[in-house]
Amino acid sequence: MNIGMIGLGKMGFNLALNLKNNGHTVESFDLSEDARKRAAEEGIDTADSIDELLNKLEAPHVVWVMVPAGKPTDTVVSELIEKMKADDIIIEGGNSNYHDSMKRAQKSAEKGIHFLDVGTSGGTSGANQGACLMIGGNKEAFEKVEQAFKDVSVENGYLYAGESGSGHFLKMVHNGIEYGMMQAIGEGFQIVEKSQFHFDLAAVAKVWNNGSVIRSWLMELSESAFSKDAKLEGIKGVVDASGEAKWTLETALDLEVPAPVIALSLMMRNRSKEEDSFSAKVVAALRNEFGGHSVVRND
Amino acid sequence: MNIGMIGLGKMGFNLALNLKNNGHTVESFDLSEDARKRAAEEGIDTADSIDELLNKLEAPHVVWVMVPAGKPTDTVVSELIEKMKADDIIIEGGNSNYHDSMKRAQKSAEKGIHFLDVGTSGGTSGANQGACLMIGGNKEAFEKVEQAFKDVSVENGYLYAGESGSGHFLKMVHNGIEYGMMQAIGEGFQIVEKSQFHFDLAAVAKVWNNGSVIRSWLMELSESAFSKDAKLEGIKGVVDASGEAKWTLETALDLEVPAPVIALSLMMRNRSKEEDSFSAKVVAALRNEFGGHSVVRND
Repeated sequence: MNIGMIGLGKMGFNLALNLKNNGHTVESFDLSEDARKRAAEEGIDTADSIDELLNKLEAPHVVWVMVPAGKPTDTVVSELIEKMKADDIIIEGGNSNYHDSMKRAQKSAEKGIHFLDVGTSGGTSGANQGACLMIGGNKEAFEKVEQAFKDVSVENGYLYAGESGSGHFLKMVHNGIEYGMMQAIGEGFQIVEKSQFHFDLAAVAKVWNNGSVIRSWLMELSESAFSKDAKLEGIKGVVDASGEAKWTLETALDLEVPAPVIALSLMMRNRSKEEDSFSAKVVAALRNEFGGHSVVRND
Repeated sequence: MNIGMIGLGKMGFNLALNLKNNGHTVESFDLSEDARKRAAEEGIDTADSIDELLNKLEAPHVVWVMVPAGKPTDTVVSELIEKMKADDIIIEGGNSNYHDSMKRAQKSAEKGIHFLDVGTSGGTSGANQGACLMIGGNKEAFEKVEQAFKDVSVENGYLYAGESGSGHFLKMVHNGIEYGMMQAIGEGFQIVEKSQFHFDLAAVAKVWNNGSVIRSWLMELSESAFSKDAKLEGIKGVVDASGEAKWTLETALDLEVPAPVIALSLMMRNRSKEEDSFSAKVVAALRNEFGGHSVVRND
């Protein structure tokens, strides 16, 4: 299949390679010249603009967009809608909010362009060797490019999820679950680490990966992390969040679904990013006010 | 190896079979005649009492105890300590509290008996086909029976964790993590199920098991559950807890480790067991008191 890849960052570059290694003809574009150079070095054809990319592709055009969510995706998709024609297909594989994807699908449809929203999981190694894809949008358009999804994903690793938005919706909830699982794993290992016993955390993660109920890819990654740095002394406990868990919670609030663990997982990440906590200051101050309990002073 | 198995319930029976299938000579005992009969039908030698079991075993005796935690384990282990001799080995594979295991190891040691506390994960299928074992206690005693642990567990599925108590400690934290992971998965699927889209939950679990970040045995079990009952209409959302998550939290409180997600996972199980919630009644009543907001009346 003849596919254009826009965005040659960690995910787009690896997906382009994966497509190429599966016999697809890939044209590519990235704003960064360095990214284009790196792609060219791997034998991936590059274009200097979206116009050139579209010119190089056969009609109907199929363009896979793999750029950061938000503004960058907006800019690229708007330009594509402007320049593409009826029956062309846009595959949007970033971490977009499903509401945005539904709007983009609507705008695309006005010109007869098909817009597929694709939630992508599995990290860069997945993008390179076999991703997990959740796909929403027009089913016939999906079927036209299904072979490409099949080729770049692991076996049984792609799903046509339904209407526009459903792919990014599933990826969003996937990330919410991921946050909860990760926080539970983090709490557990902190209890293990602070205990009176003398555990080898890599060995603990390893035995938990073999036959236990909590065996999982995240536990395998824990094993890998602890085997490189037994007590994680090389890193700080500061955890960023990329947006999907927040959207998962906003959705849970809209649907009135209680999701306390996913909520708390995100809030613990927010707490991890604070050097000091204003709410803890308030609590310390109140405890001092009513009970004369000592406070830790800022010097 | 010549091993006595006390307790022929779901776990003990399957472990005894697993040992036997791996060429060990298993003698067994259970208070229930039915359980003994079932074991005998599978070709496992049974005894009518702990005395008879010990008589049938070669010295030094090795007895694996697989009975419910608490009183039953206490009763069996006390009798064994009374009747066993120096250099005998007790393997206690139940879901015991690690504090109890430390005390039992102490009492055993007073008679020169070795006590190994073994946290067992993997469910009944694991007990039968390959368990995950976390083992605490005297290292030399562990080494004497290591071959049996190796034989009944999956590859890399057993760990000598350290001093007495460390095996059950690890199993305890394992279950705490398990509760958090399960609650996160539960919340995620509820959001998926209540959404505006029309998802096939088994298909969602399946794609998440293939290449995604949250692939895990628990997600495989979710796939299995949804493929048998697409919306779980056959069961109620009532979830019991077996004690380890509570102990994990008690330990977290003792160690002053924040573990909000594990805590909330257990409390959500407690909430699931209430037909009505007194705290929610209080909140409803207060809302009515200050704002005149309507309450739902009990008829």
